[in-house]
Amino acid sequence: MPSDASDKPRLLDAIDGPADLHGLDDEQLQRLAQEVREQIIDTIGEIGGHFGANLGACELAVAIHSLLDSPRDKVLWDVGHQAYPHKILTGRRDRLQTIRTYGGLAPFCSIGESEHDIMGAGHASTSISYAVGLKEAMRSGIGPDGKVVAVIGDGSLTGGVSFEALHHAGGLGLPIVIVVNDNGMSIAPNVGALSRYFNRIRMNPRLHKAREDVEHGLTKLPAGIGERFERLGPIVKESLKAYWAPGLFWEELDIAYIGVVDGHDMAALREAIGEALAAERPVVVHCATVKGKGFAPAEEGGLEGMERWHAAKPASIVNGAPAPKPAASAAAAAAKPKPPAYTQVFGDALVSEARRDERVVGITAAMNSGTGLDILQRALPDRYYDVGIAEQHAVLFAAGLALQGAKPVAAIYSTFLQRGFDQIVHDVCLQELDVVFAMDRAGLVGDDGPTHHGAFDISYLRCLPNMTLMAPRDEAELVHMLHTAIAHPGPVGLRYPRGEAEGTPLPDVPRALEIGRGELLREGERVALLGYGHGVAVALGAADLLAGEHGVEPTVADARFAKPLDAALVERLAADHDLLVTVEENVLAGGFGSAVLEHLADGDRLGDVRLLRVGLPDRYVTHGKPALLREEVGLTPAAVAERVAAELRAPRGALA
Amino acid sequence: MPSDASDKPRLLDAIDGPADLHGLDDEQLQRLAQEVREQIIDTIGEIGGHFGANLGACELAVAIHSLLDSPRDKVLWDVGHQAYPHKILTGRRDRLQTIRTYGGLAPFCSIGESEHDIMGAGHASTSISYAVGLKEAMRSGIGPDGKVVAVIGDGSLTGGVSFEALHHAGGLGLPIVIVVNDNGMSIAPNVGALSRYFNRIRMNPRLHKAREDVEHGLTKLPAGIGERFERLGPIVKESLKAYWAPGLFWEELDIAYIGVVDGHDMAALREAIGEALAAERPVVVHCATVKGKGFAPAEEGGLEGMERWHAAKPASIVNGAPAPKPAASAAAAAAKPKPPAYTQVFGDALVSEARRDERVVGITAAMNSGTGLDILQRALPDRYYDVGIAEQHAVLFAAGLALQGAKPVAAIYSTFLQRGFDQIVHDVCLQELDVVFAMDRAGLVGDDGPTHHGAFDISYLRCLPNMTLMAPRDEAELVHMLHTAIAHPGPVGLRYPRGEAEGTPLPDVPRALEIGRGELLREGERVALLGYGHGVAVALGAADLLAGEHGVEPTVADARFAKPLDAALVERLAADHDLLVTVEENVLAGGFGSAVLEHLADGDRLGDVRLLRVGLPDRYVTHGKPALLREEVGLTPAAVAERVAAELRAPRGALA
Repeated sequence: MPSDASDKPRLLDAIDGPADLHGLDDEQLQRLAQEVREQIIDTIGEIGGHFGANLGACELAVAIHSLLDSPRDKVLWDVGHQAYPHKILTGRRDRLQTIRTYGGLAPFCSIGESEHDIMGAGHASTSISYAVGLKEAMRSGIGPDGKVVAVIGDGSLTGGVSFEALHHAGGLGLPIVIVVNDNGMSIAPNVGALSRYFNRIRMNPRLHKAREDVEHGLTKLPAGIGERFERLGPIVKESLKAYWAPGLFWEELDIAYIGVVDGHDMAALREAIGEALAAERPVVVHCATVKGKGFAPAEEGGLEGMERWHAAKPASIVNGAPAPKPAASAAAAAAKPKPPAYTQVFGDALVSEARRDERVVGITAAMNSGTGLDILQRALPDRYYDVGIAEQHAVLFAAGLALQGAKPVAAIYSTFLQRGFDQIVHDVCLQELDVVFAMDRAGLVGDDGPTHHGAFDISYLRCLPNMTLMAPRDEAELVHMLHTAIAHPGPVGLRYPRGEAEGTPLPDVPRALEIGRGELLREGERVALLGYGHGVAVALGAADLLAGEHGVEPTVADARFAKPLDAALVERLAADHDLLVTVEENVLAGGFGSAVLEHLADGDRLGDVRLLRVGLPDRYVTHGKPALLREEVGLTPAAVAERVAAELRAPRGALA
Repeated sequence: MPSDASDKPRLLDAIDGPADLHGLDDEQLQRLAQEVREQIIDTIGEIGGHFGANLGACELAVAIHSLLDSPRDKVLWDVGHQAYPHKILTGRRDRLQTIRTYGGLAPFCSIGESEHDIMGAGHASTSISYAVGLKEAMRSGIGPDGKVVAVIGDGSLTGGVSFEALHHAGGLGLPIVIVVNDNGMSIAPNVGALSRYFNRIRMNPRLHKAREDVEHGLTKLPAGIGERFERLGPIVKESLKAYWAPGLFWEELDIAYIGVVDGHDMAALREAIGEALAAERPVVVHCATVKGKGFAPAEEGGLEGMERWHAAKPASIVNGAPAPKPAASAAAAAAKPKPPAYTQVFGDALVSEARRDERVVGITAAMNSGTGLDILQRALPDRYYDVGIAEQHAVLFAAGLALQGAKPVAAIYSTFLQRGFDQIVHDVCLQELDVVFAMDRAGLVGDDGPTHHGAFDISYLRCLPNMTLMAPRDEAELVHMLHTAIAHPGPVGLRYPRGEAEGTPLPDVPRALEIGRGELLREGERVALLGYGHGVAVALGAADLLAGEHGVEPTVADARFAKPLDAALVERLAADHDLLVTVEENVLAGGFGSAVLEHLADGDRLGDVRLLRVGLPDRYVTHGKPALLREEVGLTPAAVAERVAAELRAPRGALA
């Protein structure tokens, strides 16, 4: 339902695939891009989703597909925050309203969803590498030949692997086109030198003009004169190169540069990208776009507006007032009946810790409001660092700070921390440095789907020597645990889920928990439910159901620590019950339940107890509301209660 | 024992710490550097060790320490391949001959070893991030203030995290000095655009000269003229900037550039580094050095010589003939009685696979001879890729190749693959792409120590959906498994150890193994030993000892796959024996034994069997000969036999 009130029929209604763009002229394509934009505003207004980056990429998507023959030619959307226009143009126009819903379109590009989604990605900075691989395979005669275009945001370029890929692309001299969608932001405003570099170029029209003049002059000189010009020697040529200062950075990597192009001007885009596609070497096309383009509240809100409108909540767009930021101040949230988000509790608690101890600093990798570090940024800006999309550096930077005696808290989503795994192994745990990893989004995150679920952190961190792992069962415990983690000498991984906390009152003063000490919550019999993190709430719920519906009053305990385990608690639960059930929101392989099992088996203490491990399955879980996903994987109180009841009914050994 | 025959007393003998350098002049320091070089040649000639990079860094180490007050000022040696001169100058002169031996000096910098080893690292590209962290903490008033110098090779700069760190350093404007030790190589000759960039600068003295002239002219103009010059406007200034072309790349990152400096000229080095230390912003000092400097066989051998002499075997230096490369041709090795190295068997097998199937390609991240990919490079250069020190990109590049239908084999050491963990999770396993990870150096590697042991890969890969994990018990199985892995649709992790294989005859034609099917090797009773990879050899040895010394004839099986497990085999072993022992060279947390335990517990099939998991302990293991280290951690046939015997003697439940 387009919001355009004009009587013209929508061009978009005739676009069933990218081939349908080929007959259109610049003006029509420009109009089409605007129709795409309107469809996004209308649809995301109703259902929510990534917003700003997509509005900025409408002309880009139209221009690129008008010049390519997808899927023979490949267009790779880095992250996919900006892929909605691409989805609309590639046969998914009428399903856009299902995006990010269970069973609906995926939030990012997804290989299984469309032949035009060449790669899948919800993590940044991967597209150039993929492009190099695809094109090199084509050059080697593997698969049909075609053009390859990677579209990457300026923020994603700060991820080190982008640089590794540029280095390789330049080295191979592969004809790939890298369209830099430069909106001057990643999710939060960009930080660091590279963004200043882009800004210098964007902000300096004189530089563009000069460059164009020189380029023009060089290419349009009458015969013979160009030659004489050449003879003036390398110094003059070098001098002229200065006009290409913005491009020199790329030229040094053996990559040609075209820019700056107005990313909303169809004719300019098509000319520049067309030129790049015709080159026989890697080319960067630097496009300046406006995040939130065409949507006044985002465009006019300045940097803050952009960030706020990165992703929109349902219905918030229709009336132009975004839902409150997840990390709004504690005071604002306290006025509401709903419990605060874990993210917000963490952010507030970190500010308190930082006020108490001036060695405490917070680090985010381009996720300041997502991690709650915007609260620290506002309260104590000197103690706050945003390193850009650069998780590896975030971990090492924390290590360097710790070496000097600081108490760094690196707040990185569970899934993104995977990027810093080697640095955790080799530079933090091996060196026994005092770094706290605050892993928000541990477990199922919901709409963002499999690229964003924090499904593996217990497994990939538990195997590391010197690591301490903890997870709170509610927001009060989160406050205590952050305090405990900061006080503890050595690396700590602290995981907590996305979304609303449990509604537990927050402590006025945090206390240091004993490392490796769990807590018995309810004494019962026959069955012991041992939860970790969010698993405790599930265990408590299951216990209620078992008591009410099955006449079993289980013991319930909170392990608190996955490493070191509370050995005495685990042994007691095993000794005193027929069935011990571990509950965690992590894959079962190598997870918390596995730790319990290892401990009991090593001590030959399994005795007659049967161990049932409940957690995420050995597959990637789709996107959708967390409640739906938890039902799908059996991580609800009802599902756990049902499994326990079945287990109690069955004779030993019957359930394989 | 210096090889210098002159009568002059060694300056070096009076250097007990870096402070002793402070009174010396350029000429003395130059002489001192040469003495350091001679000590390295003499010592490494006897005991082996990293060689080329250290010989190239003698003047650098002397120059830097002469200008710093370590440890208040911090010098960070990236990787530490180049840190021997630093060790010699910082009180460890007389212990150099213990380096890389059990109980001796660590192969790289090590925080616990000296107050002058500010950070530890055996993986590349971490030093700039550490420098940013240290200096930022100092600027915030945490710990005593001091200067911070990171020394990094040109190869290490290709690692993406270096770029992330440069970006952040430039953004913060921190006064740190980054000394680029540019010897034109990482371990293998550098590849890619960045190295070409460095080469252009190195090879173009005109460019240096021009730059110097202009710089000189600008700073030395008489009063008034400089001003007039300024008024000529930005275009002239931009033109002049062209002379700084080499520096522009850095200037765009807000980092000052000084170079190229002759890295073996003490006066020039001290002037340049001194200037950089005085600056109030990040500065790169670009030093050209010669890998293997001062050692004729390395210097004169060209690129091949450099690579060959990266690390030297004991005694090979004294007579100037290096030991055969680990990846020498199969023919050469067949003439010898010793079994070939796994690395070589892998390299030969990959060439055979690539000859059979033209979709097969090999990828290395700057470790071509270490991984055996030099064999592929020589045999089929078009099917070989070296992406530089860039494991993240290596994984993604493989993913891109696979998308187009290629069959990439990414040969990356177990420990270095940690750098690509997120890409494995998010870009290979989630996308179900056909990538084979050939993980050499799985398990204990020996002299290189804890930064290089492949201790975690089973744990960090086993938790990933869609992943298949296998490990050969001998070189014949390696050939079959590589074939199996390439034929298998989907990601495969294939791990094998460093060093000599078992001496098993190699098959003429590889066969595809059934995925998830192990092999029963010996039928016995009471005890079943189930090995994975190298663990099978240990299990077989332990079985012999048990039969000979304890009167027990155990069953022995090879699991072959850690994921998927051979469920039937595991269940049968559990059902038919009192004691099931798993043997692996990986940490126990989440490893292969944990997989066996999980499977048995999930099926309630532990019954009366006791499970003993043998593997690496939950701590980082030191450096030293693998045999010594395996004794230390109990991963020898004797240790396993002893534990089994004790277990059989003890009543159930008595051993905790």
